[in-house]
Amino acid sequence: MWAVGAPRRAGLALAAAALALALALAAWRRRRPGREVLFFPSRPSCTEALLAEAAGPGEAARPCPCPLPRGDCSLSRLLRRLLSARRSLEICLFAFSSPQLGRAVQLLHRRGVRVRVVTDAQYMGLQGSQIGLLRQAGIQVRHGQEDGYMHHKFAIVDRRMLITGSLNWTTQAIQNNRENVLVMEDAEYVKPFLDEFERIWEEYSPIKYRFFPKDNK
Amino acid sequence: MWAVGAPRRAGLALAAAALALALALAAWRRRRPGREVLFFPSRPSCTEALLAEAAGPGEAARPCPCPLPRGDCSLSRLLRRLLSARRSLEICLFAFSSPQLGRAVQLLHRRGVRVRVVTDAQYMGLQGSQIGLLRQAGIQVRHGQEDGYMHHKFAIVDRRMLITGSLNWTTQAIQNNRENVLVMEDAEYVKPFLDEFERIWEEYSPIKYRFFPKDNK
Repeated sequence: MWAVGAPRRAGLALAAAALALALALAAWRRRRPGREVLFFPSRPSCTEALLAEAAGPGEAARPCPCPLPRGDCSLSRLLRRLLSARRSLEICLFAFSSPQLGRAVQLLHRRGVRVRVVTDAQYMGLQGSQIGLLRQAGIQVRHGQEDGYMHHKFAIVDRRMLITGSLNWTTQAIQNNRENVLVMEDAEYVKPFLDEFERIWEEYSPIKYRFFPKDNK
Repeated sequence: MWAVGAPRRAGLALAAAALALALALAAWRRRRPGREVLFFPSRPSCTEALLAEAAGPGEAARPCPCPLPRGDCSLSRLLRRLLSARRSLEICLFAFSSPQLGRAVQLLHRRGVRVRVVTDAQYMGLQGSQIGLLRQAGIQVRHGQEDGYMHHKFAIVDRRMLITGSLNWTTQAIQNNRENVLVMEDAEYVKPFLDEFERIWEEYSPIKYRFFPKDNK
């Protein structure tokens, strides 16, 4: 028995080790973080169906009559990533004037997602800015009173997905500019951006706002 | 002999498998791509020593008399990443006016690194822009003639390291703005940006330049 069993046992042990290795590799692959790179300008397309679908069954019934194609594009991919939020959304944006992205953010807020927005003091009041509409909808927005720009362009979905790049959320940038957006779930990238958001959120606390320029003091 | 040898062989096989697994893990860790996140504003610091050291032994002998601290900061880290280039550097930048970053790029060009620059047509001629100096030094620069902005802010070192974010390479942005820069060697991120660079490089070929505005035709 032993004379036959010896190589068999060694073989079994090796097979077990190989199986364990294969399982470990498969688990690692499953845990691989989601990654995507989007480039702009995004080709013109209608995002009404996407937004209506996310808003609920009542809205989805009305098809949009516009002549734009409905296919996949960089804007629709960005919207899908945002609309995947279930618990929280941090937004840290220099300029925000895109009506589609504004509607997506309001929709998430109505769905109960905790939305917080940090933006640039000089750009938030420009014509077409979505910031006033977001505040009106009850979303918390904070801005600095520094000389430099709050020039970040990132968002964090459910504390696990970072969306960042050169793209300001404006129609000009989406439709006309050469831009990039990275979507990444690697904790090594998400964590520092979350920390940066919390740092700025505290620094921009409304308790610290001055309501008159220094010169008038 | 066999009766004793059987469990020993199985044990040896398991030990060998464990060793192979440990070695594979160590190799995977060694091959892990380099990653870094930099935030700005960068605290004021003197980068003369860093640039002189990269320029060669002749320059390094003269210490800078300025009173700024010489320590590590986001700008020095960004400079180090750029100065690590040995073969090629692709730059795709909306605005480029930082004298330190301009010197680093010229230095790499003199060292024999193949530097190519893509920039925005409307911003390249602004006062303080480094683009004219780079062209004068013999570096190839291309720009578009589109309505939209060439708003990217990325560089690729030796076709393996991507440097991208919200940061334009200007002193204003480096010293005053809230900005981010990601350094990444993950091929999944580097490859699409390399492709984007080559696409724009071809589209912006000087053969296609119009030297008079359309209205004058």
